[in-house]
Amino acid sequence: MNRTPLAIDFADVAAAAERLRGVAHRTPVRSSRTANERSGAQLHFKCENFQRMGAFKFRGAFNALARLTPQQRRAGVIAFSSGNHAQAIALSARLLEMPSVIVMPHDAPASKLAATHGYQQGMRGSEVVLYDRFGEDREAIGRRIAQERGMVLIPPYDHADVMAGQGTAALELIEDVGALDTLLVCVGGGGLLSGCAVAAHARSPGVRVWGVEPEAGNDVQQSLACGEIVRIETPQTIADGAQTQACGALTFPVLRALAQGVLTVSDAQLVGTMRFFAERMKMLVEPTGCLAAAAVLEGAIDLRGQRVGIIVSGGNIDLARYAQLLHA
Amino acid sequence: MNRTPLAIDFADVAAAAERLRGVAHRTPVRSSRTANERSGAQLHFKCENFQRMGAFKFRGAFNALARLTPQQRRAGVIAFSSGNHAQAIALSARLLEMPSVIVMPHDAPASKLAATHGYQQGMRGSEVVLYDRFGEDREAIGRRIAQERGMVLIPPYDHADVMAGQGTAALELIEDVGALDTLLVCVGGGGLLSGCAVAAHARSPGVRVWGVEPEAGNDVQQSLACGEIVRIETPQTIADGAQTQACGALTFPVLRALAQGVLTVSDAQLVGTMRFFAERMKMLVEPTGCLAAAAVLEGAIDLRGQRVGIIVSGGNIDLARYAQLLHA
Repeated sequence: MNRTPLAIDFADVAAAAERLRGVAHRTPVRSSRTANERSGAQLHFKCENFQRMGAFKFRGAFNALARLTPQQRRAGVIAFSSGNHAQAIALSARLLEMPSVIVMPHDAPASKLAATHGYQQGMRGSEVVLYDRFGEDREAIGRRIAQERGMVLIPPYDHADVMAGQGTAALELIEDVGALDTLLVCVGGGGLLSGCAVAAHARSPGVRVWGVEPEAGNDVQQSLACGEIVRIETPQTIADGAQTQACGALTFPVLRALAQGVLTVSDAQLVGTMRFFAERMKMLVEPTGCLAAAAVLEGAIDLRGQRVGIIVSGGNIDLARYAQLLHA
Repeated sequence: MNRTPLAIDFADVAAAAERLRGVAHRTPVRSSRTANERSGAQLHFKCENFQRMGAFKFRGAFNALARLTPQQRRAGVIAFSSGNHAQAIALSARLLEMPSVIVMPHDAPASKLAATHGYQQGMRGSEVVLYDRFGEDREAIGRRIAQERGMVLIPPYDHADVMAGQGTAALELIEDVGALDTLLVCVGGGGLLSGCAVAAHARSPGVRVWGVEPEAGNDVQQSLACGEIVRIETPQTIADGAQTQACGALTFPVLRALAQGVLTVSDAQLVGTMRFFAERMKMLVEPTGCLAAAAVLEGAIDLRGQRVGIIVSGGNIDLARYAQLLHA
């Protein structure tokens, strides 16, 4: 099926795991009798909402920065993102004592701006650059600064070291609970899904790996169906981490080769799952982090009798917004 | 200091741990760099909000019921409580295939009533008895039913097997992270604090064990100060698990012998800590469960440079109420 080799293989994930040892949290794997009863399956939740900076993104960002040369580290790193990737890059840069420039929209939530500033504090050459998202092109801004300052630009998903880093979440999960029949992973640009698919197929042969994306933005489902990358309008969904318009040139071939397919869930199902996590498992999960669990808890797929891994990707959500969604 | 022996010793806690093996969750111990920076200490959070039925109470309830004779088991158990103890008894009785009668106020939250009914489902002889808390005496109702039906009444804290069961939380914590300089534990009737003090002094000699209670209801602080049990009016505090009027005849001597003292925190400090747990550690903790952490995070005690254990006692709170407290 694949004429050209995939961007990463299992050795890359294993090497990322070594780089992350003692730096990333080995997050707990939790279970819930209620969830098992509801689904008829044995569900193992890998809690990346308990990861450093609150999401799996730290794994890929740190792995990518840890591979830079001393010269590249001195020049620093640039990322454009209003979400978890930006904070992951800022924190990773701090840990590696590198300058970081984060390009964020001028209307990004104050909490994210503050968190990013916090990570950059005291790091000479680090800053947040705000742009007007209605009038300016963040990619152009990012490329210009990268060129002017000789900085490395790390994209949020379409990068081999980022993909390999994210795959360590599935690697740890399988190390902790053993072989799985099915693994469910949320998908935006496909960084987490591609890395996890590589790790899971190597460590749990025969596993079926499904992506899960919001109903409103099923570009990856469409892409797999027609065999080429489909680009969509920015989808309207509460799963802000999966509001990507298309998956990546590096991630797509991995998904074609190793993913069983992509399931979709509605925003209402995400809220139901968010409430389930709060009420029954006493943990905060952001809407994007609920995608994988919602697929099995809300009946998008029947996995009765199976051993199932679920990546709970993150827990970063503004508390006022969270309270509003819980209460509704 | 103590002329009469204490109600429990370490052997009782160790025996309880054996009974709970494979039945209670061995809950995770978590840490937070932000919490460590804020306090200047190394904080180890024992997450009993992830315990079965959402609170440490399961430990003591199951331990007490597991010690009953076959004849007592057939007759069943009775408890009066609108809180976590009731649910802990109902669930433990179910697991041991015993009938349970739970005496609850007629205006108890619907969610607690539903959860208790859920645990009792299909257990012949099990029921919830509602009483009017403005006109009736729940203890009298409980004693009458216990006598009529030959049932054993298990009180929420003043019972040796309950105390020993609760102590397993501290035992696991010290097994997982090693010796502690200080252990912080919330206190209502003193069941958790007394059990944990016994376990901690046995497994981490020289440890200082502090109780933490709401400012509005510092009966245990007063009791330790004057050397006898002080009874207060039901305190007005959001820490509903610590709204006890007095500690117990069995718990008090243990607290006198083994607790360093009792600290107090305000409701506003509990809300601040609840928000900290949500925002930084991505977990739901009920107000009572925030007491111990609030003491060190909000500055009621200076523990700089120390290794500190903190019991996060539970996470059972109505979601609408939780959302309201987060948002305020």
